[in-house]
Amino acid sequence: MPKKPVSPLVTFTTTLERVGQQMNANPSTIALLSQPQRVIEVAIPVERDDGSLSVWHGYRVQHNNVRGPYKGGIRFHPQVNLDEIKALSAWMTLKSAVVDIPYGGAKGGITIDPQELSDRELQRLSRAFIERLGKNIGPTTDIPAPDVNTNAIIMAWFTDEYARLHDGAEHVQAAFTGKPLSLGGSQGRDAATGRGGLFVLLEYLKQLAQDSKDMTVAVQGFGNVGSWFARLASEAGFRIVAVSDANGALYHPAGLDIEQLYQALKTGGTLDQNVCYPKLSVEQAGQQTANCELISNQQLLELDVDILVPAAIENQLHDN
Amino acid sequence: MPKKPVSPLVTFTTTLERVGQQMNANPSTIALLSQPQRVIEVAIPVERDDGSLSVWHGYRVQHNNVRGPYKGGIRFHPQVNLDEIKALSAWMTLKSAVVDIPYGGAKGGITIDPQELSDRELQRLSRAFIERLGKNIGPTTDIPAPDVNTNAIIMAWFTDEYARLHDGAEHVQAAFTGKPLSLGGSQGRDAATGRGGLFVLLEYLKQLAQDSKDMTVAVQGFGNVGSWFARLASEAGFRIVAVSDANGALYHPAGLDIEQLYQALKTGGTLDQNVCYPKLSVEQAGQQTANCELISNQQLLELDVDILVPAAIENQLHDN
Amino acid sequence: MPKKPVSPLVTFTTTLERVGQQMNANPSTIALLSQPQRVIEVAIPVERDDGSLSVWHGYRVQHNNVRGPYKGGIRFHPQVNLDEIKALSAWMTLKSAVVDIPYGGAKGGITIDPQELSDRELQRLSRAFIERLGKNIGPTTDIPAPDVNTNAIIMAWFTDEYARLHDGAEHVQAAFTGKPLSLGGSQGRDAATGRGGLFVLLEYLKQLAQDSKDMTVAVQGFGNVGSWFARLASEAGFRIVAVSDANGALYHPAGLDIEQLYQALKTGGTLDQNVCYPKLSVEQAGQQTANCELISNQQLLELDVDILVPAAIENQLHDN
Amino acid sequence: MPKKPVSPLVTFTTTLERVGQQMNANPSTIALLSQPQRVIEVAIPVERDDGSLSVWHGYRVQHNNVRGPYKGGIRFHPQVNLDEIKALSAWMTLKSAVVDIPYGGAKGGITIDPQELSDRELQRLSRAFIERLGKNIGPTTDIPAPDVNTNAIIMAWFTDEYARLHDGAEHVQAAFTGKPLSLGGSQGRDAATGRGGLFVLLEYLKQLAQDSKDMTVAVQGFGNVGSWFARLASEAGFRIVAVSDANGALYHPAGLDIEQLYQALKTGGTLDQNVCYPKLSVEQAGQQTANCELISNQQLLELDVDILVPAAIENQLHDN
Amino acid sequence: MPKKPVSPLVTFTTTLERVGQQMNANPSTIALLSQPQRVIEVAIPVERDDGSLSVWHGYRVQHNNVRGPYKGGIRFHPQVNLDEIKALSAWMTLKSAVVDIPYGGAKGGITIDPQELSDRELQRLSRAFIERLGKNIGPTTDIPAPDVNTNAIIMAWFTDEYARLHDGAEHVQAAFTGKPLSLGGSQGRDAATGRGGLFVLLEYLKQLAQDSKDMTVAVQGFGNVGSWFARLASEAGFRIVAVSDANGALYHPAGLDIEQLYQALKTGGTLDQNVCYPKLSVEQAGQQTANCELISNQQLLELDVDILVPAAIENQLHDN
Amino acid sequence: MPKKPVSPLVTFTTTLERVGQQMNANPSTIALLSQPQRVIEVAIPVERDDGSLSVWHGYRVQHNNVRGPYKGGIRFHPQVNLDEIKALSAWMTLKSAVVDIPYGGAKGGITIDPQELSDRELQRLSRAFIERLGKNIGPTTDIPAPDVNTNAIIMAWFTDEYARLHDGAEHVQAAFTGKPLSLGGSQGRDAATGRGGLFVLLEYLKQLAQDSKDMTVAVQGFGNVGSWFARLASEAGFRIVAVSDANGALYHPAGLDIEQLYQALKTGGTLDQNVCYPKLSVEQAGQQTANCELISNQQLLELDVDILVPAAIENQLHDN
Repeated sequence: MPKKPVSPLVTFTTTLERVGQQMNANPSTIALLSQPQRVIEVAIPVERDDGSLSVWHGYRVQHNNVRGPYKGGIRFHPQVNLDEIKALSAWMTLKSAVVDIPYGGAKGGITIDPQELSDRELQRLSRAFIERLGKNIGPTTDIPAPDVNTNAIIMAWFTDEYARLHDGAEHVQAAFTGKPLSLGGSQGRDAATGRGGLFVLLEYLKQLAQDSKDMTVAVQGFGNVGSWFARLASEAGFRIVAVSDANGALYHPAGLDIEQLYQALKTGGTLDQNVCYPKLSVEQAGQQTANCELISNQQLLELDVDILVPAAIENQLHDN
Repeated sequence: MPKKPVSPLVTFTTTLERVGQQMNANPSTIALLSQPQRVIEVAIPVERDDGSLSVWHGYRVQHNNVRGPYKGGIRFHPQVNLDEIKALSAWMTLKSAVVDIPYGGAKGGITIDPQELSDRELQRLSRAFIERLGKNIGPTTDIPAPDVNTNAIIMAWFTDEYARLHDGAEHVQAAFTGKPLSLGGSQGRDAATGRGGLFVLLEYLKQLAQDSKDMTVAVQGFGNVGSWFARLASEAGFRIVAVSDANGALYHPAGLDIEQLYQALKTGGTLDQNVCYPKLSVEQAGQQTANCELISNQQLLELDVDILVPAAIENQLHDN
Repeated sequence: MPKKPVSPLVTFTTTLERVGQQMNANPSTIALLSQPQRVIEVAIPVERDDGSLSVWHGYRVQHNNVRGPYKGGIRFHPQVNLDEIKALSAWMTLKSAVVDIPYGGAKGGITIDPQELSDRELQRLSRAFIERLGKNIGPTTDIPAPDVNTNAIIMAWFTDEYARLHDGAEHVQAAFTGKPLSLGGSQGRDAATGRGGLFVLLEYLKQLAQDSKDMTVAVQGFGNVGSWFARLASEAGFRIVAVSDANGALYHPAGLDIEQLYQALKTGGTLDQNVCYPKLSVEQAGQQTANCELISNQQLLELDVDILVPAAIENQLHDN
Repeated sequence: MPKKPVSPLVTFTTTLERVGQQMNANPSTIALLSQPQRVIEVAIPVERDDGSLSVWHGYRVQHNNVRGPYKGGIRFHPQVNLDEIKALSAWMTLKSAVVDIPYGGAKGGITIDPQELSDRELQRLSRAFIERLGKNIGPTTDIPAPDVNTNAIIMAWFTDEYARLHDGAEHVQAAFTGKPLSLGGSQGRDAATGRGGLFVLLEYLKQLAQDSKDMTVAVQGFGNVGSWFARLASEAGFRIVAVSDANGALYHPAGLDIEQLYQALKTGGTLDQNVCYPKLSVEQAGQQTANCELISNQQLLELDVDILVPAAIENQLHDN
Repeated sequence: MPKKPVSPLVTFTTTLERVGQQMNANPSTIALLSQPQRVIEVAIPVERDDGSLSVWHGYRVQHNNVRGPYKGGIRFHPQVNLDEIKALSAWMTLKSAVVDIPYGGAKGGITIDPQELSDRELQRLSRAFIERLGKNIGPTTDIPAPDVNTNAIIMAWFTDEYARLHDGAEHVQAAFTGKPLSLGGSQGRDAATGRGGLFVLLEYLKQLAQDSKDMTVAVQGFGNVGSWFARLASEAGFRIVAVSDANGALYHPAGLDIEQLYQALKTGGTLDQNVCYPKLSVEQAGQQTANCELISNQQLLELDVDILVPAAIENQLHDN
Repeated sequence: MPKKPVSPLVTFTTTLERVGQQMNANPSTIALLSQPQRVIEVAIPVERDDGSLSVWHGYRVQHNNVRGPYKGGIRFHPQVNLDEIKALSAWMTLKSAVVDIPYGGAKGGITIDPQELSDRELQRLSRAFIERLGKNIGPTTDIPAPDVNTNAIIMAWFTDEYARLHDGAEHVQAAFTGKPLSLGGSQGRDAATGRGGLFVLLEYLKQLAQDSKDMTVAVQGFGNVGSWFARLASEAGFRIVAVSDANGALYHPAGLDIEQLYQALKTGGTLDQNVCYPKLSVEQAGQQTANCELISNQQLLELDVDILVPAAIENQLHDN
């Protein structure tokens, strides 16, 4: 029987308090970090293409701006809830501080399955959300970024709406990151989260004085983060033995050819509709190429690998 | 055994939906009114006089601004919670619309017992709350007012802090109502809620073609609203037979002399520490003046009177 | 053969120069008044309901603001052109000055037949126009008003869009006049132009020491201006013997019952579809009630009346 | 007999439509590009040194800002007219897009011969123009640049006036390009247009795989653009055989020594007042140095050269 | 030998401290009131008509804004100095408080004899002063008024320059009082100071239960304040026996006909160039009309009258 | 007997005029530079920790912004006075111009001994000063820096208060330089003044074609500027023979080991409490190490050295 997932916010505050005690941190500091400075929750009415009206809920949680303007993604997902967004905003504060960039932490989202909307409805929803957030965001205040199900196009809508509301018809591009390149976006933004994960891993192995050569890796999730991580890690010499998506995982002990897999999925489809792309030929790998198999996400998590990369969503790892 | 109080928000939405059906209202309208347009929730760190730091929670709920800027009080009370504030903000929208003034509805509060704070702490809390609300309030946006435990002094702090944050060191008095007269407050603000209640009652009786002369009235609550209502209603010819505060109620079937009672309580004290001030002398009232007695709030609510005025807090009236 | 209409701008500048010479005015003053201070011309792309895109042209001419913020209507009409708008803006400067109100003169318009648009297209057009005008209008700068084919609803769209673009989602109602009453419009706005014309006429007759009693009046045009003038003048004792709309004119020498006519046309229809509503019964008027007839607009202009009221559009009156 | 010059705007729109058809472009896109988004036309009253008042006309045409803030020069020239400015603004949009810089297209000008004004009048005119443009320009909105007859000094006046009107007495230097170096101008701005033309030419020859060594070049115009182009192209190995100014052209088949010519003209004068500066000595060039001659602009245009550089004004090239 | 005049600032602080002690005022309050909150001192370069440059000094002292925005005049006078302006700003704070209007106190000035400037230089000086004051003044901050040698025209220049600097080319009329009526000035502003003095005098006499009928009055100064006071007091029944200007005083024990005197001086001239206008005819007054004489200012101050009105400048009254 | 120090402002204006005459400078230019454009003087009330109120005086002098925004330090010192601040602001204008950075000159200060305040009082004072300066400072207007007794912490308070007053609760870091690195400060700021002095010295010696090797240097003052200069100059090969602080000077003809001295003083203490740290060992220097002695500041100024570095405060150098 599946256990009820632990609240991400409880996970955060529990961890914060435990670490605080270990560090002998000032209780006031822990108290300040254990809750966001500001939560904005909005109702977003959107006219549907058939003329009817639907109302969705959106959130922006501004956790802490002591080190710089609030920064964090906006996600569109049916499971978005305030508890999760609060927790993610807090982790953003800590992540910015750990890598010493002058930003604070924030997160936002709309509780919606964006696939239920037409493109025009999705645009209206995106614009209405920015209008409702009003003066709570901005280049020196709070700078949202793409996140689950929000891409460069949505950032372009956000930016354009923000510009309309604040400067007439001008471009106010600094209010959002993750924009299309042609509208002032940054090169490399697409791969950044996956690449960042790899950088951290390599630094960690360097500290452990371990050689990454042929280390085995299982990657849970093959979205933007997981696929970029897998491609770049594969290039860097890691052996990616398993990757998964919502429908299941491909597993090959001798390593998968991630680039072939990525190209095969670029035009759509899921992993379980694909054959294995072993990294080694039969000759190179011996009998192992026959071992390619489709396994479940749960099985992937339990593989005996050197490195397990959780690149899906929260609450995948738990005891029992 | 006391029943768990019904959520004020559920009371609101249930009522809204029932009325919507009776009116054949557009479901979209009901959907829009059933939730606030924007909720702002903030953590408010305040330095205590002893140098330590406490963090409180504050809320501002902006229910609807279709008819004009958001408008509604800010209360400081240990039982303040988001559910209650949402409900009260919604009633503000409806109340403004019913009397056709060009304002929308809002409400706010901080979950705190202000008596636990020194005056200087209370001032710091008040100022920090306004700072955290940031650009979400203002003269053309959202204009807070006094409410439970917030008075003209607190409005002065709010106004001064708002002015500091928005205009250098200037006075931006239109951002708050309920200020002291010397800082641009309006005459009559003090009595306004009680007087307004009396006006509505008189209009209603006019519609019913009933004479208010000697109608019997029981007033639950003798704070700002209840005491002003009682004084003004008494002047207008109603017979106030009972008034209560948190400690109990004074009851006299021939009517109480509200003005005497009010003056006696002006310098502090509770109703149960007072003798009855019968409105009529023994001669005028006969045996009745002997009937003065101290009853419970519950008994007051069950008195056989023409008019019962609930002027305390929410959820006092319920079946059994 | 109809003569080519004289350019309204030429009419204005010719008149201005002639008057200037008669007044021995400073040539610099005449030079400054002979042209607008600023002309804004915009292309307005609007998404049609079928997904295609149409582009219309709009204008705002700000003639002179020496005496106060620019003020003047915005009209939607297929014959709108820059020459006409410039001339009308100049007359606005003079009209404001003559009646000594602290406004300058402006005028604007979009070259479009609004009947070709759906309501949703018309709203999008109205909002896009305001967005393109950008920071050139505003409560202390330039305050548009309704004009030909623009009504209180369009002013509400203008106001709402202006508010969205300038203050988040707030109401910035002072940027437009002619709004619906419920959004801060002024009572009497509807009748104001017609009533103002009557006031001027009455003052003029007072100067001439003439009695208006039973003066005969022909009113060309039965739109907002003409119908209000006719109704109010009729109330004031004038005998309205003819009124016209685009299809023709109703003429009755003994006077028309304007109020009846107005009520009959309220739900649509044109004058030529209506019977005459003589002001006097057969008994009162004798044979005259038989004289009711449908005449042309041209015939109306040539009626032998005391007062001719041109309440249609420009360039109706010319020699031959 | 000289033909009436084709309207630059007609040239633009004709070209746009032809290219659009060749590209199968979306007709809406062509419709949007065929006209400016916003035209601002202003009357500019200037007090003359003798105390009288003159009024000039100025224009700013904002063609398209989809790719970034409007950008383009402001020219002072007696032939400035709206048709020309509209066309030039449109070409600016295309030029910015072709070289992929994040700006849109604009152009502006005042219809005046600046030589008729004293320096102080010219300064007053420049400042008054910026004041009349008001909030339509700015660092994130529309950033003017120097153009025909407007130089770094005028940009300094523009910038100072803009700063006065928008920030008290401060420097808001990002609102204009082409300022003096000491006021934040960019190094190389002076040569930029000519140098840019040379870069484009070199890239084009590279694509054609042609060697530029000793290619013959005729340059029409020896103002800022023509002289810089000629100097830089000469340095780069091109043989500049003819250059012209308003009074005529110097022609030498063996090439002119552009640098000597440039230095000779720096202190004033026209080309026809100068001797030829042959690039080659008699020994180097043989008889050719004798061929130096003064020819007309028309003859220059018809020279048999590898490259003809039209660096004067519009409408110089036409059939017949 | 004339004594060195006492510093107006010392007079103020001495008085303040003495009164503070009498009132047992909080020493912090006295400390706060004994000095201005903010002093702005500017150098004002002005281009002379001959092209040279002069630099003058200007001041704005903002004494206290606890009760509302700073308010006070700006004077142009060769003796303007910081000490005097500080003192006058402090008295403004007290004067506003005494009559309970929601303003604080300020004062300003330029050390200049305005008669040395041409009208165009005076305008440039006025505008440059406002530019230098920058964001320190404004409708909600500090609202200057006319004072010695500054009139409605100068207020119009101030207002226009303020508008140019803050809102493009719009009218921001609330930043200054004392403007011409046609630019939004208030009726009665001209007479206000004199009339206010009379009101205070009448109230004071009412408290003393004294009849003002035929009280004798000497008025030192016949500028705006003195002449209006004298005219209005004369109308109110006081007997004005002497008035003075810089050249001397007219004295007539039976009273002067102030209105006649005022009309005689309207077109220029000084009192000593005028004959006496006795209020009473010879018949009415008997021998007294012969007593008309020209006296010195010093003599006026020592006349035996019921009321002495010092309406000139500071430091006229002193012992010995 | 010590002579009365010359006013720094007189020193400045005298020098300016003399140089102006030598340069044949335009007298208007000298007139403009001889006085600041704007002086702001404020009273700063601060609540003491014991609840009482103290009022201090602060200044900001904005000398000239022709070349860019005002720039200069703010010092907290009991001898701060307007005369000194005016002079220092003027030198800032010249220093910025000499090294051709696009800033003007300013200076500010509060007349206070910061050691008399607790940390919390110092913070309140710092914040109140920024509030009183209001809109006179800002990133494009006037950018203060640290100076005598103001460090990175105080800059952080300034920045935070500025941010609170101007942008809600956001960071507006460009308004001040000298902030802590973690709040956006620049690396190297600490050493910049001393290092800059060394750079200038080295450039000067280069012009004189002199070798700096073993040049003897006496440094008056061992605060931020003097100690950094001494350390860097020592590294660069100069022989620092004497350094002083308020209590006296250490002198050693063979040179001091500045780095050792600096480390010894880092944890507090004064020079006179320290032994000499000769740069050379006994062997290296011979008898000289015995010569180490404690001398007075006056003696230091009269040492026979190649270079004397006045790094204390103004008015140390004078004849006799």
